[in-house]
Amino acid sequence: MPDKIEEELKDRADNFDEYLEELLAGLNIHPDLEDPVSYTLLAGGKRIRPILTTAVCRMLEGELRAARDFGAALEFIHTYSLIHDDLPCMDDDELRRGKKASHIVFGEARAVLAGDALQSLAFEILAGIEEIDYRSRCRLVELLASAAGPAGMVAGQALDLKAEDQDISLEELKEIHRAKTGALFRAAILGGAHCADSEEKQLLSLEEYARQLGLTFQIVDDILDVTGSEEELGKKVGGDEAGQKTTYITLLGLEEARKEARAAARSARKALSPFGERAEFLSELVNFVLERQH
Amino acid sequence: MPDKIEEELKDRADNFDEYLEELLAGLNIHPDLEDPVSYTLLAGGKRIRPILTTAVCRMLEGELRAARDFGAALEFIHTYSLIHDDLPCMDDDELRRGKKASHIVFGEARAVLAGDALQSLAFEILAGIEEIDYRSRCRLVELLASAAGPAGMVAGQALDLKAEDQDISLEELKEIHRAKTGALFRAAILGGAHCADSEEKQLLSLEEYARQLGLTFQIVDDILDVTGSEEELGKKVGGDEAGQKTTYITLLGLEEARKEARAAARSARKALSPFGERAEFLSELVNFVLERQH
Repeated sequence: MPDKIEEELKDRADNFDEYLEELLAGLNIHPDLEDPVSYTLLAGGKRIRPILTTAVCRMLEGELRAARDFGAALEFIHTYSLIHDDLPCMDDDELRRGKKASHIVFGEARAVLAGDALQSLAFEILAGIEEIDYRSRCRLVELLASAAGPAGMVAGQALDLKAEDQDISLEELKEIHRAKTGALFRAAILGGAHCADSEEKQLLSLEEYARQLGLTFQIVDDILDVTGSEEELGKKVGGDEAGQKTTYITLLGLEEARKEARAAARSARKALSPFGERAEFLSELVNFVLERQH
Repeated sequence: MPDKIEEELKDRADNFDEYLEELLAGLNIHPDLEDPVSYTLLAGGKRIRPILTTAVCRMLEGELRAARDFGAALEFIHTYSLIHDDLPCMDDDELRRGKKASHIVFGEARAVLAGDALQSLAFEILAGIEEIDYRSRCRLVELLASAAGPAGMVAGQALDLKAEDQDISLEELKEIHRAKTGALFRAAILGGAHCADSEEKQLLSLEEYARQLGLTFQIVDDILDVTGSEEELGKKVGGDEAGQKTTYITLLGLEEARKEARAAARSARKALSPFGERAEFLSELVNFVLERQH
């Protein structure tokens, strides 16, 4: 089963990558910015966020083409944040998705601009999704903007920077991750539901699923930073420890962190129970996130 | 007359600043980011873009509260671009709106994040404008996103960086400005029209007005960089010459540049003729932009 889902995810990511290229080609981008904008965006990645959006939308029998566009907008936002986070004044990383970071290839100024451009494009895409009505588009803009902005992902990055050289508690670490990773996971999952005009009750279950899946993802990320190989991850490993960063491992130790991850994964699967068998793929996804090696 | 419009503009800018503070207080911003987000945004400025939006909307008898929100979103975008442009890896400016630049006060990382956050908030505001229907909101999101993104403002900044140490032609200089300054001017003016559901024919006249007003603004900016005082401008002067940057002055000389500015101002006023007396304020604004000393 783990093999099967891994294959399935790879297929979905490949399909999504193809669509992303097609979508990008249709956008209005000045020739001077085409390379900086597409470089990190098309450098691969697991595409877990857009896969989540589409899976939720399919489960709720919603408009799949709209979900695909929302997933694309999510990847634009996620990619802009990777480009900016890698800058020397931020996390100062030179490797991203197995390739040189944007600022290494294009220089810092163009990397800043590429990120800025990706963010604008994300909202341009959402406003133009023809398959859903204007109300749903506005809902998606609001969802993604608040997830990306200073109450979500950007706040997480600010908290993360502040925490770099100081001890923080488990609660504080969870707050950082809820903002930094959790906000976009939540948007990915609720966005899929918005493309299906889902009911309030379903949204609550999906929020809980998003919360627990995000937590699982983040704990496993910390574990892999200690146990994974650079080649498998496509980014620098041991970076957390080198910077004396607080992680689930420094706070709990490896064994306890693994236990926490398993508990979060269980809660994620439990949150899906109202959807019964229709949630099979989303449930398998939890296992994948828990057991992934990269 | 020039005194009267100056006073009027000051009043409108002050009113807008008050609204901006109120609006900001209602947004969801993590406490750690409140200061970096509000610092440059509330540091004053002429607020020419939101004043344009509201003036166009009033002329066309549109929904003024929506125009005010669109103007606010414009200032969020404009401010984020100032913060990012001032970064050491970009224009490396330490002074902005008469105060220390964001990265001097908060450090580079937080300045990057403040800009990123302002951009997200701009779109969050637009999606939530309750006074207009969802279709108009989507139109505003699309208008602002395309003006801000890699076919507009961000492209202008990329071209500007490239042009820094090389000779460019008058046509190339105009292309830079059309993107860098012109795109947001155009959005400001068309956004006001969208808040009034205006006709296609009116949009064409307003586009020409925007183009010529933007050009006037930019030539005068270059002139002031040579003739103005640092105190009056609230930013470093002579910066253009120091970096051997091509400007209207280096290309045309001071006198010819002044002539070009006057010609653009005439064309801007002429574009308003279909609106007759209702365009009085927008016409006075052209004179103000032409004759301003800061």
